[in-house]
Amino acid sequence: MTQEEEVVLLDYWPSPFGTMARIALVEKGVNYIHKFEDLSNKSPLLLEMNRVHHKIPVLVHKGKSICESNIIIQYIDEIWKNNFPLLPSEPYQRAKARFLVDFINKKVHGSSVKVWMGQNEEQENGKKELLAWSKFLEEELGDKLYFGGDVFGFVDIVLVPFYNWFIVFKTFANFNTIEIEFPKLVMWGERCLKRDLVSKSLPTSDQVYQAYLEFKKGWSHG
Amino acid sequence: MTQEEEVVLLDYWPSPFGTMARIALVEKGVNYIHKFEDLSNKSPLLLEMNRVHHKIPVLVHKGKSICESNIIIQYIDEIWKNNFPLLPSEPYQRAKARFLVDFINKKVHGSSVKVWMGQNEEQENGKKELLAWSKFLEEELGDKLYFGGDVFGFVDIVLVPFYNWFIVFKTFANFNTIEIEFPKLVMWGERCLKRDLVSKSLPTSDQVYQAYLEFKKGWSHG
Repeated sequence: MTQEEEVVLLDYWPSPFGTMARIALVEKGVNYIHKFEDLSNKSPLLLEMNRVHHKIPVLVHKGKSICESNIIIQYIDEIWKNNFPLLPSEPYQRAKARFLVDFINKKVHGSSVKVWMGQNEEQENGKKELLAWSKFLEEELGDKLYFGGDVFGFVDIVLVPFYNWFIVFKTFANFNTIEIEFPKLVMWGERCLKRDLVSKSLPTSDQVYQAYLEFKKGWSHG
Repeated sequence: MTQEEEVVLLDYWPSPFGTMARIALVEKGVNYIHKFEDLSNKSPLLLEMNRVHHKIPVLVHKGKSICESNIIIQYIDEIWKNNFPLLPSEPYQRAKARFLVDFINKKVHGSSVKVWMGQNEEQENGKKELLAWSKFLEEELGDKLYFGGDVFGFVDIVLVPFYNWFIVFKTFANFNTIEIEFPKLVMWGERCLKRDLVSKSLPTSDQVYQAYLEFKKGWSHG
């Protein structure tokens, strides 16, 4: 790989958004340099490459930066277009995938943060919302293997890091009805976790739990 | 146009997001049926077609719904791909356009709402933020005619409804330094307004101002 072709991912291991970028790169078979950020002391490279938001993940390709996880995944799909398509080819299916990705990033993420960081009533509200979103996603999935049909793709990449969070939620937030209420969603999650490239890209439950403790400490001091 | 091919836009005239969908359709030369919603009494069609968010705009094409303005614009670009491309063809330029659209929808819209609905300190903060975002956009535009280069496109479609709001802000929020500080952005705005298809799609200043009064009344009662 020449320097001109170099692919760098600025990342933070427990981040669901970083995880999405990682999965997209490995599913495409792209060799990349992984740089991990200390979010309490962000690197000058991150501040320069994401001038607006100062957030990971950032993909740096041929010296140019691409920010925001869903935009990074679409870029990866368009650049390495011949290996393993991530978005469907048909416009309505593409629109539907983009809608679900937006829904997951806004709603599932927002409610997960309430369960993750909130206390008492706020945490309970987050759990109720997550059950409602899970119901919607269970219906959207239906009897398909993956959200796009028979093949793992865009929506799966974006949802699986949150599914990985659920597993941790179960242990600390008493969030254990999901398996009974949404069997298709749980089977989908387990199907995704069995993919080598996915499971290697996910933080372990321990790493997620450690990140949870660190954030909780940091936020309560902030 | 057969019923199978029918294109319907569920819309609300003063909405910047509705305006974006309108401009994309007319720039592509698509014939469509315009249905206006009363947002205080949403139609069963809107509730059915946007089950998750219950928001306009919704594009209904061949009986299927597409929601979220930026997803609608990309869908329109992909379906009517031979007339007047809205997104660039090169992946990095596409990623950059998507990033700016996301920035405008989050940051410019968020700060505009503060100027629009906020009072005192909150309104002042909104104005300061809008000046910072305008500076960033002025730099992004540089000496180009439009954000994508020589041709009107995706980013222009998304920003022009907010530019149209600025014009109203000037009259009620004492927001009049933009012309002096950001001459390129203002020249860009006036260039867009001179496009017949754009100006016909925009609400008039009076309509925006009326919507402002109605929202203000509604929100202060809510």
